[in-house]
Amino acid sequence: MFSEDTGNFFRSPVREIFKKVDLNSIYSFAGGYPSAETFPLEDIRQTMSEVITKWGGNAFQYGATQGVTCLREAVARRCNVSIDRVQITSSSQQGIDVCTRILVDPGDVILTSNPSYLGALQSFCSYRADIRGIRHASTIESFRASYEEAVANAESEGKKIKFLYMIPDFQNPSGETLSLEEREILVELAQNHGFLIIEDSPYRELRYEGEHVPTMYSLAPDTVIHLGSFSKIFAPGFRLGWILANPEILDKIYVCKQSLDLCPPVFDQYVAAEFLSSGKLDANLVKTIALYKSKRDLLLSLLQEYMPKGVTWTHPEGGLFLFLTMPEGFDSVKFYDKALGAEVAYVAGSFFHPDGSGLNTMRMNFSFMSPQKIETGVKILAGLLAEEINEMSK
Amino acid sequence: MFSEDTGNFFRSPVREIFKKVDLNSIYSFAGGYPSAETFPLEDIRQTMSEVITKWGGNAFQYGATQGVTCLREAVARRCNVSIDRVQITSSSQQGIDVCTRILVDPGDVILTSNPSYLGALQSFCSYRADIRGIRHASTIESFRASYEEAVANAESEGKKIKFLYMIPDFQNPSGETLSLEEREILVELAQNHGFLIIEDSPYRELRYEGEHVPTMYSLAPDTVIHLGSFSKIFAPGFRLGWILANPEILDKIYVCKQSLDLCPPVFDQYVAAEFLSSGKLDANLVKTIALYKSKRDLLLSLLQEYMPKGVTWTHPEGGLFLFLTMPEGFDSVKFYDKALGAEVAYVAGSFFHPDGSGLNTMRMNFSFMSPQKIETGVKILAGLLAEEINEMSK
Repeated sequence: MFSEDTGNFFRSPVREIFKKVDLNSIYSFAGGYPSAETFPLEDIRQTMSEVITKWGGNAFQYGATQGVTCLREAVARRCNVSIDRVQITSSSQQGIDVCTRILVDPGDVILTSNPSYLGALQSFCSYRADIRGIRHASTIESFRASYEEAVANAESEGKKIKFLYMIPDFQNPSGETLSLEEREILVELAQNHGFLIIEDSPYRELRYEGEHVPTMYSLAPDTVIHLGSFSKIFAPGFRLGWILANPEILDKIYVCKQSLDLCPPVFDQYVAAEFLSSGKLDANLVKTIALYKSKRDLLLSLLQEYMPKGVTWTHPEGGLFLFLTMPEGFDSVKFYDKALGAEVAYVAGSFFHPDGSGLNTMRMNFSFMSPQKIETGVKILAGLLAEEINEMSK
Repeated sequence: MFSEDTGNFFRSPVREIFKKVDLNSIYSFAGGYPSAETFPLEDIRQTMSEVITKWGGNAFQYGATQGVTCLREAVARRCNVSIDRVQITSSSQQGIDVCTRILVDPGDVILTSNPSYLGALQSFCSYRADIRGIRHASTIESFRASYEEAVANAESEGKKIKFLYMIPDFQNPSGETLSLEEREILVELAQNHGFLIIEDSPYRELRYEGEHVPTMYSLAPDTVIHLGSFSKIFAPGFRLGWILANPEILDKIYVCKQSLDLCPPVFDQYVAAEFLSSGKLDANLVKTIALYKSKRDLLLSLLQEYMPKGVTWTHPEGGLFLFLTMPEGFDSVKFYDKALGAEVAYVAGSFFHPDGSGLNTMRMNFSFMSPQKIETGVKILAGLLAEEINEMSK
């Protein structure tokens, strides 16, 4: 039975926001929404018409459980893998769910960063996994030691580690990126101790500065399951993602996915395939990256200008989020009602922490709102934070 | 962990067919595919363009987990329920999976008809449910007795019955329909013994003769979870269905669905909503029903003309399937290779039987193929069956 009684992930304000509040009507740093202006409406309209002409009824029929061949081929080319390593998913969230479902029994250990992606933690919890979050250490030696220690602890308890879940590029929620050396350490650890790595990679192509670091999948394609998504590089309304993995793992996923939903949305897959193959997706992505870079820069400069003393934040090289840390003792869950009362939303940091820590942190999204709303939102939030922190020090 | 080691459902030839054979290139009575000619391509093309104009970027953004409001409203109107009883699903198969996931622990009893829908049995198996199939009795007294006995047996073993899964209209695979009295007996039994009923209803609107029987949901909306689907009345390529249930159950489904895939495909939902509201869906459905009725009539008359003695079949009043019974001792699993060698596909009946019985049965679909292919397919199949049955009697 689906378990929602473990952890605090199911009481997340995100759920309540999504259920009750119209994000367009408030200042929302909360969701991980792309900006709607990045959706190339006229190109989509034209491509949809072309897909109907080209594929006819096949575009609306049941499709293969693995995904339609032309999309698998397009993803394979883009990721430089063979097509038998590509499974299309009905959203990247489904990729997380299906991998957990085929791999995890109640009580099995899943290693994650601490903090990590809320939606993944929800899924892990629902399978009653034993989630062990590991804080990002500042030196490479302590990074290695912290993961080695977590593995040794689980093994000494006789627990089975099923996989390590990581978002190595522009992590959700922290915005941080793992160095090549860090990735190599994790891959080596997984290989030495016989567990898999799930590399969740929805933001990788949204880089605003610096150089791409190789994917963990490219370092060890039989140890790493790579999850990709069209949500941030094209449009989330299509609910399409992909899994790269070795064919034996994909065969298990195939059987499981068949009982989940038979196949991914078919018409949407043809549209995505056409966008990839025609180069339209990449052309649009250049504009998206420029837009998000300008929003990130804006948010960073506004935080610099308006945030009270004692508040710090990460500097993400890409992605959609940065992470704010307030002074010890600050409670971002309690503070949330105050913020929402002033029409500002964020996600409290503790919801991303499998150990429930991080009460003095929050995640801020910079992709969704207009520059004007980002500016007003930061000013309101900064004012409230200044008050709150001032209160605390009394 | 996902379980595929129980039952024989995962070794189904359907899986192999879907994976390896192009259904268009053979005579396939196998899948539950609509006929591609029923998809109103030009209306869809126009509606898609209208949706883009009307909803803009919202049509490609993340949507509410319950489904977009206009589609929930349209389904609520069509089904004559309030909107808080409607959850949109990413396929009706997801409806089955999500209900099983929130309700069933390993070892819990699920009652089903025997035979029942393969995809549901796969899902139940994967959650390690204890599936009890009940054969359809010929009199109302024995119908009641057979279900009462199954309930009493489970209770006397101290087992928890979580739900009864039924396809009351034009059942998959048998094509049979439950009478009102049968439905009332099942609802009363569920209420008296405190379990739910899942009424899977993808074919209900495809009736070719006789009068509609009330849904089980309409008899007891707090005892019955109703699963609807756009796959057979519109197009399966959109992967959209709906759940009607009481709001408390829907709240559990909401939380579960959020961790499965966040929300159903958004653009596809707007298209479906527009088709429902504009009346285009109903106008098209009239044509679909006429087409499928003619195909059903054709198949029935061809079976009458060509099938050897000893073969019998059901007479479905609607839906996509009829069910063939060969003489005792016939093995439709073994026979399958012979049929596929002659380019004819069906689904062996035993795969629909949770107790593994029904080896001498097979399911035949009549919606997918053209009349010409149905005719040639029946002739080939009848010839092979005559040979095989002749062999058996030696």
